[in-house]
Amino acid sequence: MAETLKIFKIGGAILDEPAQLSRFVAELAKVPGPRLLVHGGGRGASQLLTQLGQQPQLVQGRRITDAATLDIVTMFYAGKTNKQLVAGLQAAGANALGLSGADGNAIRAVRRPVGAIDYGFVGDLPADAVNTSLLELLLRAGLLPVLCAITHDGHGQLLNTNADTIASAVAVALAARRAVELHFCFEKNGVLADINDESSVIERLTAAEYAQLKAAGAVAAGMVPKLDNAFAALEAGVERVVIENALRINEPVKTVLCRS
Amino acid sequence: MAETLKIFKIGGAILDEPAQLSRFVAELAKVPGPRLLVHGGGRGASQLLTQLGQQPQLVQGRRITDAATLDIVTMFYAGKTNKQLVAGLQAAGANALGLSGADGNAIRAVRRPVGAIDYGFVGDLPADAVNTSLLELLLRAGLLPVLCAITHDGHGQLLNTNADTIASAVAVALAARRAVELHFCFEKNGVLADINDESSVIERLTAAEYAQLKAAGAVAAGMVPKLDNAFAALEAGVERVVIENALRINEPVKTVLCRS
Repeated sequence: MAETLKIFKIGGAILDEPAQLSRFVAELAKVPGPRLLVHGGGRGASQLLTQLGQQPQLVQGRRITDAATLDIVTMFYAGKTNKQLVAGLQAAGANALGLSGADGNAIRAVRRPVGAIDYGFVGDLPADAVNTSLLELLLRAGLLPVLCAITHDGHGQLLNTNADTIASAVAVALAARRAVELHFCFEKNGVLADINDESSVIERLTAAEYAQLKAAGAVAAGMVPKLDNAFAALEAGVERVVIENALRINEPVKTVLCRS
Repeated sequence: MAETLKIFKIGGAILDEPAQLSRFVAELAKVPGPRLLVHGGGRGASQLLTQLGQQPQLVQGRRITDAATLDIVTMFYAGKTNKQLVAGLQAAGANALGLSGADGNAIRAVRRPVGAIDYGFVGDLPADAVNTSLLELLLRAGLLPVLCAITHDGHGQLLNTNADTIASAVAVALAARRAVELHFCFEKNGVLADINDESSVIERLTAAEYAQLKAAGAVAAGMVPKLDNAFAALEAGVERVVIENALRINEPVKTVLCRS
């Protein structure tokens, strides 16, 4: 039986702070056993879009990925962020290997159908999106795959894809082959009972408890899609889902989500 | 005994022409057996540097890679060019996987020592630069590695590296494990006896014949470092070095370099 795989997802704020990112990289390199990292983009991509004269395209409040935007975010995520993470992990002693979804056909997406809104070059993930054979080949060779949030459609088109969605899809797909833990890392210590109190971490949260909290409006709006996604991964066979501080992944403080 | 590996190197003009690049990708996907691609940058990287307000830094006519330039060329080569090639090859049926030298520690370089000129973040390749185990793992899994010209030093620093040098180093390193052919692809049909006549391709060129042509000043200046590099690879154990048109790799017209 293969060892438990730990999948970490980082995004947002930490990617914008080089000092914090270095600390995360050092902590990740210390985690024993097979690991995989999925990263989103940070504010840097938005800055680059502005520098290159692209106006953020918003329709009904949703960001649209036109061809020029896709080009720029691909450069930023797959070029800059991904390679800096990989070089940093290599220096810290972890044999990282960066991937977009196109590489080795790691993640094959489908362009989001045009409905009321045309999101542009945005990819959604079908049930068979993840190339588990490729990821297992790399993991068994002792490599640490580092996936950015760019996928492809298999017909030559790259697609911008949500990093939380990729992390969950990879976790669920690999859970058919071995035990998988999915760690969503962010700037807080976990799910907080009181959003203003970092010491109020809920150590264990069941699906039923979460449903109650959500119904009572006690979950921060930004956390709802993340937690919905996380509980869905748990239901789909992922062994453990953890919400934790990106800088404290090797410490006991964290929220562990439980089916029941 | 493993099958003969064909390593292709493209750069310059072809990377700037989407239609030509698509044709090359389609031809490469048709080549049977194990393949590996090394690509340089095109003029697009220079355009991006200008768009982002970077002045080309030149000292004694040589380009200097400062930190801002490295950031931008890494985005362009490892992000844009590499991912477009990989997505295109995937669409054409070749299971391509893009790599910088940092990925899986594929190519570990050494920053060029500061002498009369400080070239900045430029990498030279020591004798043991190439991670042949990683490349063999990928090749044996049926993957087509696509290497961009960004390497790392193993201490977290990415480095800009000459793509011809990478192609030769990879060919020489893998030649210790299996038969390797090295194909330098460009916009001409091969080494030409008359630079103005595309039909004057020299089909076969020995090291002695090349030395004579070079002494007579009959080799275009831009070709001298490329051919020196190519003959050195041949001397170091590469089975065949071929100079050919990137759009005609599956046609017989080409120059084959021979040890004697």
